[in-house]
Parts: sequence; C-alpha cells; structure tokens
Amino acid sequence: METQLHELRTRLSEINDLEAAAAVLQWDQSTYMPPGGAAARARQLATLARLSHSKATDPALGQLLEALRPYEERLPFEHDDAALIRVARRAYSKRARIPPELVAELSAHSAACYQAWTRARPAGDVATMLPLLARTLELSRRIADCFPGYAHIADPLIDLADEGMRAATVRALFAELRAELVPLVQAIAARPPVDDSCLRGHFPEEQQLAFGEMVIGRFGYDFTRGRQDKTHHPFMTKFSLGDVRITTRVKPDDLSEALFSTIHEAGHALYEQGIDPAFEATPLASGTSAGVHESQSRLWENLVGRSRPFWEHFYPQLQAAFPAQLGAVSLDQFYRAINKVQPSLIRTDADEVTYNLHVMLRFDLELALLEGSLALKDLPEAWMARYQEDLGLTPPDHRDGVLQDVHWFAGVIGGAFQGYTIGNILSAQLFATAHAACPTLDAELRRGQFATLHGWLREHVYRHGSKFTAPELIERVTGGPLQTGPYVAYLRHKYGELYGLAG
Amino acid sequence: METQLHELRTRLSEINDLEAAAAVLQWDQSTYMPPGGAAARARQLATLARLSHSKATDPALGQLLEALRPYEERLPFEHDDAALIRVARRAYSKRARIPPELVAELSAHSAACYQAWTRARPAGDVATMLPLLARTLELSRRIADCFPGYAHIADPLIDLADEGMRAATVRALFAELRAELVPLVQAIAARPPVDDSCLRGHFPEEQQLAFGEMVIGRFGYDFTRGRQDKTHHPFMTKFSLGDVRITTRVKPDDLSEALFSTIHEAGHALYEQGIDPAFEATPLASGTSAGVHESQSRLWENLVGRSRPFWEHFYPQLQAAFPAQLGAVSLDQFYRAINKVQPSLIRTDADEVTYNLHVMLRFDLELALLEGSLALKDLPEAWMARYQEDLGLTPPDHRDGVLQDVHWFAGVIGGAFQGYTIGNILSAQLFATAHAACPTLDAELRRGQFATLHGWLREHVYRHGSKFTAPELIERVTGGPLQTGPYVAYLRHKYGELYGLAG
Repeated sequence: METQLHELRTRLSEINDLEAAAAVLQWDQSTYMPPGGAAARARQLATLARLSHSKATDPALGQLLEALRPYEERLPFEHDDAALIRVARRAYSKRARIPPELVAELSAHSAACYQAWTRARPAGDVATMLPLLARTLELSRRIADCFPGYAHIADPLIDLADEGMRAATVRALFAELRAELVPLVQAIAARPPVDDSCLRGHFPEEQQLAFGEMVIGRFGYDFTRGRQDKTHHPFMTKFSLGDVRITTRVKPDDLSEALFSTIHEAGHALYEQGIDPAFEATPLASGTSAGVHESQSRLWENLVGRSRPFWEHFYPQLQAAFPAQLGAVSLDQFYRAINKVQPSLIRTDADEVTYNLHVMLRFDLELALLEGSLALKDLPEAWMARYQEDLGLTPPDHRDGVLQDVHWFAGVIGGAFQGYTIGNILSAQLFATAHAACPTLDAELRRGQFATLHGWLREHVYRHGSKFTAPELIERVTGGPLQTGPYVAYLRHKYGELYGLAG
Repeated sequence: METQLHELRTRLSEINDLEAAAAVLQWDQSTYMPPGGAAARARQLATLARLSHSKATDPALGQLLEALRPYEERLPFEHDDAALIRVARRAYSKRARIPPELVAELSAHSAACYQAWTRARPAGDVATMLPLLARTLELSRRIADCFPGYAHIADPLIDLADEGMRAATVRALFAELRAELVPLVQAIAARPPVDDSCLRGHFPEEQQLAFGEMVIGRFGYDFTRGRQDKTHHPFMTKFSLGDVRITTRVKPDDLSEALFSTIHEAGHALYEQGIDPAFEATPLASGTSAGVHESQSRLWENLVGRSRPFWEHFYPQLQAAFPAQLGAVSLDQFYRAINKVQPSLIRTDADEVTYNLHVMLRFDLELALLEGSLALKDLPEAWMARYQEDLGLTPPDHRDGVLQDVHWFAGVIGGAFQGYTIGNILSAQLFATAHAACPTLDAELRRGQFATLHGWLREHVYRHGSKFTAPELIERVTGGPLQTGPYVAYLRHKYGELYGLAG
C-alpha cells in the first residue's frame, strides 16, 4: 500500500509538473512574449497538453486508484490520504470518459474559434461566428453525453467547473436571488445618480500599482510567493503553492480599474497561497471549485475592498498617493463613487448589484441552447431582448452584445458562468459566518488589520484546497447549504444606506 | 522514407518542445520568479528534463535514425535532410549513453545549487558551496564516464560543448596563445595606465538600457522576435527561432557594464535569430558549438563594439544621451577608456587582452579537479594562488574569487570555459575573412551600417545552425582550421597603437 501510494504521488506529481510548465508558458505568453514567439508557443502548449492528458488518463493510473480503494475505505473521510485518493479518482474518471479524439477536436476547434472571435468581435460580426458556435454547441453536447444519466444536459458541464452543482439547483438559487435583485435595482434607479467623476482624473500608473500592492500585502498576499505583472486581461495563475501570481491592467484615467482587479485577483491568490503545503503537486493543491474560488476574489474585492470600514483606514493613504486628484474629495464622496449602481452593457464593468443579472442571463441562454429550446440563429436577438428586459438597455451592436465574453468562443457552451454568481452568494455567507465567529472583525478592518479574517479563511477554507467539494465545504464551514440570505441582506443593508432606501 | 522522415520530425519536435518549455521555466527562474517558487521549479525542471531525455534516448528513435541511414547516404553531405539525420543521430548516440536517473539527478542538483549560489555568493560563503560542488564534481565525473575510451576525463565534457575538441588540442591552442599574451600584457603594463574615470560617473539605468537597445537594433537584433530583461548574470536563451531573448545587468556607476553585456548577448542572439527558419524545432536550429557561439558574441562586442570605427559613428549619440557625464570627454579618451588593459579579478569585466588568462586559469583548474590532481577543498586557495601568479592580484574574498562565475554552480564542472577563448580566437579569424570578402566593411562600420557584416555572417555562419560542426564550418568559411594568427595580429595591432608599443 505504501508503494502504491508513493506511485500515485509520483504519477500525480508528473502530471502536475507538466500542467505547471504549461501555466508558466501561458503566463509568459500573456506578459512578456514577443509576437514572433506565438506560433511555436502554440505548438509547445499543445505538446504539453497532449502529454499531460495522456498521463492523466493512463489506464494504469485508474488501476492504481482502484487498488487503493480498500485503503481509502479504511480511513476517515477527512484523512488526507483518503481525500487524495478520492479526489484523484474523481478527476481520473472524468478525464478518462472523454475520448482523446473529442478532446483533440474541441482543442482544435476552440483555437480556431478564438482566433475568429478576436477578429469578429471588434467588427460586431455575429454572422461569421454563428456557424462556429453551432460546432461548439455540438461538441459541448457530445462532451455532456460522455456522462450519461444526467437530469439536464448542462449538468455534466456545470459539474466540471462546480462539482456537485446541477442546473436545477442553480436555477432555483438564481430565481430566489433574482426575485430580490430586480426590485432593488428598480428602487436604486428611482434615486438620484451618484457622481463618480472623482475616479476619472489622471492617475499615474506607478502610484496606482504601488497602492494596490501595498493593500494586498496588508491583506496577507505573500510577495515572496508571488508577484504582479500587467496583462490585457487580469488573471491569477499558480505554478506551485510557493509561486501564485496575479496580473492586472492599469487605466491612467480610471482609478478603479487596476485597484479592484488587483484586489480581485489577490483574493484568488490568497486562497491558493493558503493551501496546506502538504498537498503540493497533488490534485488537492487547488481551490475546490469555480464558485468557491470566486467567493474569495469577491469577498476581498467587494465585502472588504468596497466597504466603508476598509476605506476609513485606507482613504487617507490613497489621498496621500494622489493629493492633487483626491485632496478635495471626501471619504463619503469616494465611497459612493466606488459603489455606484448603474445598469450597463458590459459584465466585467458592472457594479455589485447589477452584476448578477449579467451572469443569470448568460446562464439561462446557455441552458436554452443546450436544451434546444433556443435556436442558435435566435441567440443574438434573445441576448438583446433579455438585456432590455433585465437592465433596461439594448446593446447598440453585437460587439457589446453576444460577442462580449470570450467564454463561449474559447471553450464549451455550458458551465462557465454560474460560478460568478455562486461566488457572490457564497462570499457573503462566508463573511457572515466569519463575523459571527470573530466579534472583533469589524473593528480590525476599520484599523486596516486583516490577520483575523485572513486567518479564519485560511483555517476554514483555504488550507483544505480541493479536499472537500464545494457543497461539502460549505456545509462544514457554515453548518448548512449555500444560501442567498446573507448576500441579499448584505446588498440590502449596504445599498439601502447608500441610496437612502426605506428599510 | 517520407513516412519515416515525418516520424523523425515529429519526434524531434516533441523533444524540442519539452526543452523549450524548460528554457522558459529557467528564464523565468532568473528573471521574475519569486523566491518561494524555487523548490517546485527545481522539481518541474527535473520532470521536463527526464521526459525530454527519455524521448531523446528512446530506442525507437535510434532505430528510426538507422532506418534513415540509406536515405542519408544517397544525399549530398550538405543536403538539409542529410544534415538533420546526421546531427540527430550524433545527438541521440551521445544522449543515449547517459542514464535518465543521472540526468534527473544533475538537473535537480543544478537547480538547488544555483539557488544556494545566489545567496552564498554575495556573502562570499564558500563553505556552504563546497559540499554542493563536491556533488557537482561527482556527477560530472559520472557523466564523463558514460563515454569510456577518452584520453582525458574532461574530453567527453569538452566534446559536449565544443564537438570535435579535446583537452589536449585545447591545451596546445591555449599554450600557443598564452606565449603571445603574456609578453603583450607585460609590455602594456610597462606603459602609463589609461584613465577610464569617464566611465564611472552616474549613468541612469533607463538611458543605459535605451542606448544599448538602440545599438543592437541597428546591428539587426529583431525585437519582434526577442526582448531584453535584467538578471543577476546576463545570458541569451531561445524558446524558438521566433523568440530569442537576452538579459543584461545595469550598474548605475559603470557605463560599460550594461552596454557591453547587451552587445555581447545580442551577438549570441543574432546567431540564433539568423538560423534558417526551415530548421525550426529540429536539432539543426541552434548554434553549432559553444566556441562558434562565443565567436559571435565577441565579434559584436569587441571587434565591432570596442572598435574606433564603431565609436566614430556612435560616440556623439552616447554623448547626447549623457551630456553632463561625457560632454567634455573626447572620442579618443573614451575609446582608450573602453579598451583599457588592466589585470583584474572578474572575468566578465576583463579587458580583451587579459580576458583569456581568466579563461585558461578556469580551464586548467577544471581539468585538475576532474583528474583529481587538485582536491576540491584546495580549490579556493588554488584559485587565489593562480590569480596572483597570472594576473598579479589576490582576490580579497571568495565572492570575487572562486564563487564569481555561475557555470560550476548551475551545471557540470568541465567543458564550460574553453569555448570563451576559442570564441575570441575564431572571432578575429571570421572578421578577417569577412573583411577580405567585403572591401567596404570598414567604411560601413564607420557610418554605423551593419547590413553587409550581418548579411555576410548570416549567409556564411548563422543560417547553417548546427548543420556543420565547428571544425567543418571553420574549414568551409575560412578555408582552413582554427588559427590563433588573426587574433594575435588583431590584438597586437589594436593594443600596439593604443599603448604605443614598438611594432
């Protein structure tokens, strides 16, 4: 058994190393690679992906995991070895079910589709993309069909990103949230608009980056185990538990862009940096689901980084960094500006309140396409209609309509969006649980101290990595399932106060 | 045969991709990786090295190369396919002799040793490094012993870097050169010293980097297929023919440091960028030996970059970049300063004349360590004694003594140094050949034009990559073997004039 466990760790470490190498090559591609490197880099990434996939689906790995089943069954559910075998087996059986030809087809199609999208999006050229999307939809359905026995065809795709979640549960959750959000957005729309012009001056890049890095350092982001670089689209990436990097983008005329993207990605990174080092180079050494990951980026970005206690401490430092721009702007003005609610067309620019309407709309359209209740040719109009219905806006073109997000154009249709809203819901549920457990939390945040919050999250969420699925983790930490209550209460309280709504 | 050739290319491309991935991980390790990434990075590099070694030594590859022998023998020696099969077979037979466990051991040890060296060197902490070096020496000997039948234990290690060279031939060549260098250094030492204080002002980093990058752009270094970053020790690395990067280091109080290291590494990069794109992802797509590579870095650094014609054109631009520092310094003063001959402790800072004494010393110590005629514990003192003997100086500490070069601390002991002096010798031989073929060369250099020189080198050296070994290439280009004559004539002429020595 010791020998088998050692062999398992060796095999998993080799797969991990190939995936980590690919992550370094992708990071380099987004940060520093000169244009001449692109063609060879695509080939190098394809080689690494082929090798790691072949090792991750090696039947000998499956046999090893079966041989370890009796050992696993003798151990408590929470034992690290049991979790390692359980999680590795689940990952193996999922990857091994998808035929290598289908993986190759999807990979080739995704690359071609992404290339076409980079040209079609600026031109709003939806006609070019529809036939490519039809193929994506067909491949997405074939992947779902590798997992027969589902209740809804999106279930296997949702499960790949948010293990344990299904279309029906997500729909119920989203309906509940939507019933609260729509009246809240309407009530805010009836109030006078907030002036956020204080965020639109000239803010030199160097000071913006320095301020953001100071803040995340105070949160507990460990720069000896990470770094920040600039990219077109911000992201977090991990090469090992000792090397968890983030990227940001800076707009010299928009103070909120770099700051909140830095905090958002640092939230993802704090999760990865907090995983038990004993899990290094195993499938346990990653955040457990898209939704739980997003709960951490949003908790630090919104529940901390857009909160009044946070800025009571940090706003004087921000003013000191930008005295000419913010010297005459009060804390209250600034706090209102960074929390301005305004229906808009672009998901990634949306405020906390309207953001989830963007996500739900995509989720519902994905499900309709997969079911066949919405024909692909009707998707662009369905998008327009739903924006009008939910946000009172009609996109002037498809560039900022159905072509806006990369997700459908560089992967499968299904499973990519629900995690964003699950993350928002969970962020408030976890924050409320932390508050209940740590009575001094608010006072500490007001003093710019994060050790208690960071410590609580590390102890209850981060260190476990993928040891528990999201439903298992949420039950352990909060004593119940995922609930919209704390999130709705948070939004109502914060925005009720900000917009002077009747309690 | 077409099928076999296709299979050969596929196999070689996969090996190339794994090696390129490792090169990206190493570049990242030297440029941007946070310290916390070190341990996992060593493991990732070991995994990639093990996989690429296993593919490069797969017996099926050997059989394929044998099956292609009749095809190769039907082709002219210079045919690209013949060269591909010949060079791939030579590489295969060398690599297949080294057991994969030994490769993995060396790779893991080198990464750990390099990390330790980056901390130990600033502290001059030789005691920490000696046990690590002992392991390096043991691994180096084990690698040499994979090639039984050598005349000297260093022969296989020298051959891995400079194919076709042996300890005995290098010793003979070095003895010939040394007999010329020692009296030249003595004659210069008898003349009044040159004042190079004009290089020691304050030169802001940004302007230094900009000037160096302008110069190498003029040489023909293609920034769309490369970039420059800063590292502790400058180097050139290649991820594909479209991505050939260099690094430099800047000293704000020393104008010559970044400038000549940038030019030096760009010389290496011009070689790699100039390789026939048809060779991409094959063993032909690299410079052919350490010595030929160094001939290109030294040709651009010294025969061009420290020449009077070059500075007749560029000095006014350098003065314009640093008007306060150089406005009152004449071209003649500056030219003398950058060519000042003075025995010193640091190889990479050494002038052209004494430089080779640094190399010969390391070469002799390597051979003595490998032979066992020098015990490792005596190395630091032997280093000190030899510096006193050859250069009349004793290093005040080990930081600038035995710990100064990265080579022994990030690879094997043996074969790493002879290429530097072979490169110097060859640089003058190739430059003389180019001059004989292109009568307008000097006039062009005086106008800051490099197209003829770059074009000649690309045509006669660069485009061939590894198609010919160094001895084959030198014979093709110069009509004879490697000779010290042109190098000695160059040094005598240049430094005779500079120091007013009797012809």
